[in-house]
Amino acid sequence: MVISETGEDGVALYWGRPGYEPRSPANIKPDDGGRFHYAWLRDNCQCPSCILESNGQKLHSSASVSSTVKPVSISVVNTNLVIEWPADSLCQSNGVPVKSEPHKSEFSIEWLQSNNYNQQPRSPSTIRSIRWDGAYLKACTHRVSYDEFFNHYSGLRSVIQQLHDFGICFLTDVPTDDKRVEHLAKRMGCIQETFYGTSWDVRNEPDASNIAYTSLYLGLHMDLMYYESPPGLQLLHCLQNNATGGESTFVDSHIAVELLKREYPDHYKTLTKVPIMFKYQKDLHHMQYRHPTILENDQDLGLQVYYAPQFQGPLDATPDLVLPFYEAFSVFESILNRKELLYTTLLRPGDCAIFSNRRILHGRQSFDPQSGVRHLKGTYISWDDFKDLVRIHLI
Amino acid sequence: MVISETGEDGVALYWGRPGYEPRSPANIKPDDGGRFHYAWLRDNCQCPSCILESNGQKLHSSASVSSTVKPVSISVVNTNLVIEWPADSLCQSNGVPVKSEPHKSEFSIEWLQSNNYNQQPRSPSTIRSIRWDGAYLKACTHRVSYDEFFNHYSGLRSVIQQLHDFGICFLTDVPTDDKRVEHLAKRMGCIQETFYGTSWDVRNEPDASNIAYTSLYLGLHMDLMYYESPPGLQLLHCLQNNATGGESTFVDSHIAVELLKREYPDHYKTLTKVPIMFKYQKDLHHMQYRHPTILENDQDLGLQVYYAPQFQGPLDATPDLVLPFYEAFSVFESILNRKELLYTTLLRPGDCAIFSNRRILHGRQSFDPQSGVRHLKGTYISWDDFKDLVRIHLI
Repeated sequence: MVISETGEDGVALYWGRPGYEPRSPANIKPDDGGRFHYAWLRDNCQCPSCILESNGQKLHSSASVSSTVKPVSISVVNTNLVIEWPADSLCQSNGVPVKSEPHKSEFSIEWLQSNNYNQQPRSPSTIRSIRWDGAYLKACTHRVSYDEFFNHYSGLRSVIQQLHDFGICFLTDVPTDDKRVEHLAKRMGCIQETFYGTSWDVRNEPDASNIAYTSLYLGLHMDLMYYESPPGLQLLHCLQNNATGGESTFVDSHIAVELLKREYPDHYKTLTKVPIMFKYQKDLHHMQYRHPTILENDQDLGLQVYYAPQFQGPLDATPDLVLPFYEAFSVFESILNRKELLYTTLLRPGDCAIFSNRRILHGRQSFDPQSGVRHLKGTYISWDDFKDLVRIHLI
Repeated sequence: MVISETGEDGVALYWGRPGYEPRSPANIKPDDGGRFHYAWLRDNCQCPSCILESNGQKLHSSASVSSTVKPVSISVVNTNLVIEWPADSLCQSNGVPVKSEPHKSEFSIEWLQSNNYNQQPRSPSTIRSIRWDGAYLKACTHRVSYDEFFNHYSGLRSVIQQLHDFGICFLTDVPTDDKRVEHLAKRMGCIQETFYGTSWDVRNEPDASNIAYTSLYLGLHMDLMYYESPPGLQLLHCLQNNATGGESTFVDSHIAVELLKREYPDHYKTLTKVPIMFKYQKDLHHMQYRHPTILENDQDLGLQVYYAPQFQGPLDATPDLVLPFYEAFSVFESILNRKELLYTTLLRPGDCAIFSNRRILHGRQSFDPQSGVRHLKGTYISWDDFKDLVRIHLI
């Protein structure tokens, strides 16, 4: 690493081809270096009096950094950038210096590279999915036993890896007691409690508050789209199932989006533009939130799909988007329902499906309620907790 | 209501000045009527075979509506729009009609008015705040006793009203047992559990995982900004407080944003544009999410502020925004810290502060840990649950 230029408000660094000196900072490609503002460098000093070692919290606010702060000296020592700052380099907004002594910062080349804001956009999403259709998923996933998952790290890790890659995995041999699904969830994170409870029963009920609690065919959908942050993971644990029918169905929305984008680019664009009002209004609850059907590769969220036709309120789009929406949505739904995309499985007592509620559509074939009992128990884990798991265990 | 024009793909309705007929649909102002697409009308039929009466869920998908659907007849009967549809007006994406009989829809003028998508943007946010400074809050809020809150609807409603208006309110005479704060939360909604637990202790600890758990001065901030959906409400219940110092501080971020926008419009714009990476990385957790400091009046969220200087990671903005950010952030922080905005109060055992973590900044004066014990217990309620409360009890 060499200093290519020290300017009025920042320093240009070059860490590209050794021995080669770029003629001017403007010639430095983002991979080979970058120009760093003094204010940014002062703000991000990594020393223990700027960042609390025990927990990584910053001990000053970005507001204490003047945009005109300048170093006393700046040099490269070994592979570190070393900067000495004057005594008043951090001042509270009332002008009082935060620290009264001169200050020294050191930045390693690795740290500068991984925080190089000259490369935009930089941070990719945490989740990089492997798209699947029904046959591919059948071939690729392997079921994990309750014992492996609960008592061995390898089982937990396999579940997280499959959830990261495919958005879905299955446990077997789970004891079928009522609250077991909550214990499964707590092995991975916190339960995201909703007005349905910490866990909830899926079985046919008279006068059901939700179509899921009937024996009717339940089309592909995602849950709780009327939340700002719909659940990240859903667990569906089968306690009893001797009814005829009632197979569970799953589809990877990411492959459907990929197909839509390739085959119908205009429809794809429409579905990224039209906000859908999702709504639940009954008894003592009135939840609503708008999400587009498709959120393009968001840096924090990755690709997101929001799909729950039965919970859509009246479309509230600008008039020019209304007919394009109906055309696009119909095409997207026909792709989602292509037979080759569908993964169908009959959950048996002791099985538990765990899947990303932000990626995987789930549904159910109708069943004959006279033929027997079908009883699942479900719970949720937040999307934040799921990403936390992925960062800790896989990255 | 009169039919102003029936066209190829929609109908123009007029419900303005009685007896007055607009010359052409283009002259209809959004307040006086609008043009409604047939596809939209068919999709939003409100009859019991289109919407399940028991829970308001739709029984067909928007994908079953053809963008070229046309009515057989259309008329205004009394104040209702009445439309008769052909037998195949709803078809699944595979072409199979959803229903095989002709269908009739009726829309009341009130329903059409409240769902008139010709008015854009239409749906305002649920929360309309009353801005406050320290003196105003002191004059306007009244404390609610535990008994009123827990045993009488008027107490619950007063709390929700104050939270809606001011973003903050205080309970008194709350029994000081350890889990009481969770009971308080459950009176209003579900607890938003995080890796800190369903509730958590705020008291000074050696080797604290968070600066909040020390006796140090704790600047104004919001909690868990590294979540996609940071908590909506925070409850802080005082169990013990005989230490010297440790007053709680609160500031309304909405008034600060208003002042910033008025006094420094450029800085305001900068803070709506720069995404801030919030980060928590310690032991077995790595949470991160980016939010702008100020999210402009979002239709779903209203005005949102994201502010937690101690949890900011290195700024990751395009280089041209770096220095403007430092200038703007410093000015914003100086406004937040204006003495007249600050509301300071010493929480005594039995007091509980409840406040919107998406609007109100909270902090703490330092205290002398040798002088006594300061012990608060806190918990969270999600933003979705808070908005649900507001819609159910106030609107």
